[in-house]
Amino acid sequence: MIDNEGAWRALSAVRSARPLVHNITNYVVMNSTANALLALGASPAMVHAVEEVEEFVDLAQALVVNIGTLSADWVTAMRLAVARARQSGRPWVLDPVGVGATRYRNLVAGELALSSPSAIRGNASEILSLAQATSQATRGVDSSEPAEAAILAARELAQRLGTVVAVTGAVDYITDGERVVSCNNGHALMTRVTGMGCTATALIGAFLAVEPDPLAAAVYGLAVLGVAGELAAANAKGPGTFQVQLYDALANLERATLLERARLA
Amino acid sequence: MIDNEGAWRALSAVRSARPLVHNITNYVVMNSTANALLALGASPAMVHAVEEVEEFVDLAQALVVNIGTLSADWVTAMRLAVARARQSGRPWVLDPVGVGATRYRNLVAGELALSSPSAIRGNASEILSLAQATSQATRGVDSSEPAEAAILAARELAQRLGTVVAVTGAVDYITDGERVVSCNNGHALMTRVTGMGCTATALIGAFLAVEPDPLAAAVYGLAVLGVAGELAAANAKGPGTFQVQLYDALANLERATLLERARLA
Amino acid sequence: MIDNEGAWRALSAVRSARPLVHNITNYVVMNSTANALLALGASPAMVHAVEEVEEFVDLAQALVVNIGTLSADWVTAMRLAVARARQSGRPWVLDPVGVGATRYRNLVAGELALSSPSAIRGNASEILSLAQATSQATRGVDSSEPAEAAILAARELAQRLGTVVAVTGAVDYITDGERVVSCNNGHALMTRVTGMGCTATALIGAFLAVEPDPLAAAVYGLAVLGVAGELAAANAKGPGTFQVQLYDALANLERATLLERARLA
Repeated sequence: MIDNEGAWRALSAVRSARPLVHNITNYVVMNSTANALLALGASPAMVHAVEEVEEFVDLAQALVVNIGTLSADWVTAMRLAVARARQSGRPWVLDPVGVGATRYRNLVAGELALSSPSAIRGNASEILSLAQATSQATRGVDSSEPAEAAILAARELAQRLGTVVAVTGAVDYITDGERVVSCNNGHALMTRVTGMGCTATALIGAFLAVEPDPLAAAVYGLAVLGVAGELAAANAKGPGTFQVQLYDALANLERATLLERARLA
Repeated sequence: MIDNEGAWRALSAVRSARPLVHNITNYVVMNSTANALLALGASPAMVHAVEEVEEFVDLAQALVVNIGTLSADWVTAMRLAVARARQSGRPWVLDPVGVGATRYRNLVAGELALSSPSAIRGNASEILSLAQATSQATRGVDSSEPAEAAILAARELAQRLGTVVAVTGAVDYITDGERVVSCNNGHALMTRVTGMGCTATALIGAFLAVEPDPLAAAVYGLAVLGVAGELAAANAKGPGTFQVQLYDALANLERATLLERARLA
Repeated sequence: MIDNEGAWRALSAVRSARPLVHNITNYVVMNSTANALLALGASPAMVHAVEEVEEFVDLAQALVVNIGTLSADWVTAMRLAVARARQSGRPWVLDPVGVGATRYRNLVAGELALSSPSAIRGNASEILSLAQATSQATRGVDSSEPAEAAILAARELAQRLGTVVAVTGAVDYITDGERVVSCNNGHALMTRVTGMGCTATALIGAFLAVEPDPLAAAVYGLAVLGVAGELAAANAKGPGTFQVQLYDALANLERATLLERARLA
């Protein structure tokens, strides 16, 4: 049962277990992602050296792989980490940032998506591009596609890859190929702060560490971030104050508020 | 005509066009630069892999090259991106961070400055060093030179390279080698937050995407940042609250305020 | 005499001298470290290219080496910078982030610790791991060790390496192998913001630039950060507002407040 009570139980589990979340992520959001994970109650680490990345996978409870500022050495590290996570049964989540923009991103994102992630999170354009990059289809991609338009592609992708796919936008849609759950939370200011999608992916990583059902983990991560975003926006006068308030909201989110505000369907 | 009305028109153009601004910039400021561009109304991307950097130049409306934390791979990416921008007529702006401090910076900044940037922005010491690094002169550089002292060097540099040079300080001076425009906005707290110069350069990049005259684009970028800085300082009690307020001020800046406060001459 | 008056004198010296502090640090904290150093009154620079790192050591008044997101190229730069700092008598401080977690970190941290740092700062687990990594002992390390448990190891390590070792936690302990000074300042919110330990190390770097006794420099850096943390917490509602307030508190810290609140013993 994926519902508001489940979201609260999972958030409580993150806060008490403080799972170590291993991030191989982009330079732009390393600081904001670490702070969001800390505010949530998880324990973040950013580790990418090929000399140690596999050893670190074994120490962590979940892995986050984000290709935002990829380069060759980092891709090597991602491959090593993902192989190790599969081998040792660690959950991991993929953020295919900017897939569709360049051939290099299509190659890397496609390869990683085919490496058994527990979940994938992207916006509508990215999920449509990823669906193409992992299939034989060659249809063009409109980057202005709303999240709704990507639901079918997400469901097909989730079925084909045996994973959970989350399409985030004004409304988020999360599917394991059979079930489709929507989350109608968040605020427009979240699009005016860099890396909010990356933060969403990292929070999904934290929930994967404590919640065995990856569909539920993805839904809960997005619901908690969306509700925190609404609370933050109520205290913000622009994108600067919004980001600061978001960390406070994640840290202070209480049961009654989450139960009342999370809009899952 | 470069004036306050023009600054407002250009800002409105950024906000409505939401130009994609491609940044190859330093690790320290990636997050704050992205947030400033988002607050302004532009769409930032940070992409540096040699495998994709040229393809990405073609997607973007302007390119920002900042050598703050350069290393060999990044310099290769900068060269590729700049060559591609020249080839496809994309405007690009150079931030020669720390030129004058080391021979490596002098070499890299000198080479990039000679690669037809649309504009260059630096503090007085950097512009004086860059003037040397691109000429045969070998006179020493005093890093405490005020902006005024660099005006002559900036004008000569702009003429010689056929570009626009912005010297920022308590008062900013912007020249295309013929005209010299000054912008007398900003606040001392801007020197207590890291990367404010880098942010200025990135905003110039956003204005280059919508304003065909690079002198006007540079002036407008600095005027908007300077006015936003004044508004932020009025709500700040130190450098922490200042930075947060700056993003809000960039996002919320209104016509009447900009027309009233921008001090161009 | 290491006391509150000495802390104030050293802070005043940083503010008036504005020492250039050269950081080779991790991607996660580059921005927050630079902002903390600026708020303190120092002048930060992040430089790591092998082509220029030695030249930059000569320009700076202190060097900070932090292995948080190490990789092979960065380790090469750290080696070059440290060798140059030793050669030219520049003080430098080591932050062995995550030592104990992987063999690679143990190797790198161990080698750097044996390269005559002026000071080393870590949490209890890191200092215990570093004591092992630099000796023949092979006893396991409990990452939940409180700071107190690491005091003996810190003292032995400081004696053996001829350096100052700071173990930070709820109470900080700083030793040169003979003397042990404690600093009982700070706030629990400091553990909910990423890179607060890295900030502590960087502030120690700034104090090393103006204070010839490295034990005093380490104590003063931690005392100033701890007191600023207390002031920030009083104005914060969570980790987001805390971090913003911390920069303001560092910039605005006054003599009377520091003398009254610093709890050195």
